[in-house]
Amino acid sequence: MRNIRVTAAYDGTDFAGWQNQDNARTVQGVLEAALAEIHKQPVTIYGAGRTDSGVHAGGQVFNFYSVLETIPAERYASALNRLLPRDVRALESREAAESFNSRRDARMREYRYYIYPSRCVPPWRRLYSWAIPAPDMARLGEMASFLVGRHDFTSFAAQGDTNPARVKEIYSAGFFMDGPCMVFRITGSAFLWRMVRNILGTMIELDRNKREPEILRQILLARKPLHEGMTAPARGLFLHKVAYENPDGLMY
Amino acid sequence: MRNIRVTAAYDGTDFAGWQNQDNARTVQGVLEAALAEIHKQPVTIYGAGRTDSGVHAGGQVFNFYSVLETIPAERYASALNRLLPRDVRALESREAAESFNSRRDARMREYRYYIYPSRCVPPWRRLYSWAIPAPDMARLGEMASFLVGRHDFTSFAAQGDTNPARVKEIYSAGFFMDGPCMVFRITGSAFLWRMVRNILGTMIELDRNKREPEILRQILLARKPLHEGMTAPARGLFLHKVAYENPDGLMY
Repeated sequence: MRNIRVTAAYDGTDFAGWQNQDNARTVQGVLEAALAEIHKQPVTIYGAGRTDSGVHAGGQVFNFYSVLETIPAERYASALNRLLPRDVRALESREAAESFNSRRDARMREYRYYIYPSRCVPPWRRLYSWAIPAPDMARLGEMASFLVGRHDFTSFAAQGDTNPARVKEIYSAGFFMDGPCMVFRITGSAFLWRMVRNILGTMIELDRNKREPEILRQILLARKPLHEGMTAPARGLFLHKVAYENPDGLMY
Repeated sequence: MRNIRVTAAYDGTDFAGWQNQDNARTVQGVLEAALAEIHKQPVTIYGAGRTDSGVHAGGQVFNFYSVLETIPAERYASALNRLLPRDVRALESREAAESFNSRRDARMREYRYYIYPSRCVPPWRRLYSWAIPAPDMARLGEMASFLVGRHDFTSFAAQGDTNPARVKEIYSAGFFMDGPCMVFRITGSAFLWRMVRNILGTMIELDRNKREPEILRQILLARKPLHEGMTAPARGLFLHKVAYENPDGLMY
């Protein structure tokens, strides 16, 4: 059976997240339903990142095994788009090695978090950014620099996350402007559940209280989970890209 | 009674347009309901532009007469925002001359139309742009130049528009890039119903067929209404700003 790899984008607003759940509209569920219609039998997909309810994706990657021999691998994207609702789009599809697993084999994930730096957010950006009074980008940038490297991220784990693998490697973390928005960009090997939203929520809270950037490093080193209020809302977060290794190095 | 002028923004997706209609959710209806709650009596508002269903606004202007003496004019914006649904926001409020009427006194209106230059539109832009294969911006720009000046715009009137005042003055018309989007910006004294969408739809159709830009001028001079297919979809259109005269010249 061919192993097909697809890159997809979605607007997370009306989804209860990526992962299948009973009685809830999920991205995985909608994609599997479209694939079942194409294959005339159930199809299971494997996603690189399990985004939460309200979180968007510009470059989620998933794979599945296809019993069909008739559809060229590159045509799955357009075949899917004919069946998918408008809030999910397949951007590209291709054949992958039989052993390829989009989650296990991902080498780098890039998340972007959009901040609209005023409470007065244009209504068409309200579902795709967090509207807060303009933070101090220099202070935030200094905080972000402490995240880079290999760390135990227990301090930024979600309440109730029982996964014991808390050590992750962050390759880069910083801020840039995209139009009127301030964007937090972070890349790493992998991320704990809610880690990006907990990190950003904490940085914004520290900035609001005019605390020293160094405090973020102390919080990280303390390895003690934070209290609830530090989680930035889902709507500003985008799973931007997932990268895999190929013989020439990292590949998107 | 004080005359209060408000600038508002809205996401037109879930509205049946600006103007009140029975059994339909309209921007005017939602704003009047919030004002009625503040005033404990019905309030009528006068909007500068009657946007259609699905059309957005970044700077719509309306005015109303207030029987209340207690609220400073500048505070109406935040009082409204506490009561309004999240897809409408009051950006600013101030006191206007008693004779001020936001529609009659508007001297310039600016519309922007967002084109996403690929059919593969990120889902979070799908309700705020028209996704089409990349048009030729130079050709479109040349077409746009023929619009500037005082013209009878009958050729771009909507079917069923019985308004006999077809002469409008266009001050500027052109294209620019905003991130990945190609934006059509047009400013003028006033616009016929659906005129911007009919102009843009026609230009895109001409470009697609690789017609000479000059054809747009011939269509304009013919003063014959177009057939239906030439109307660009509502979702790409934004009423960006409305300008008024003050002693020092034009004022936003």
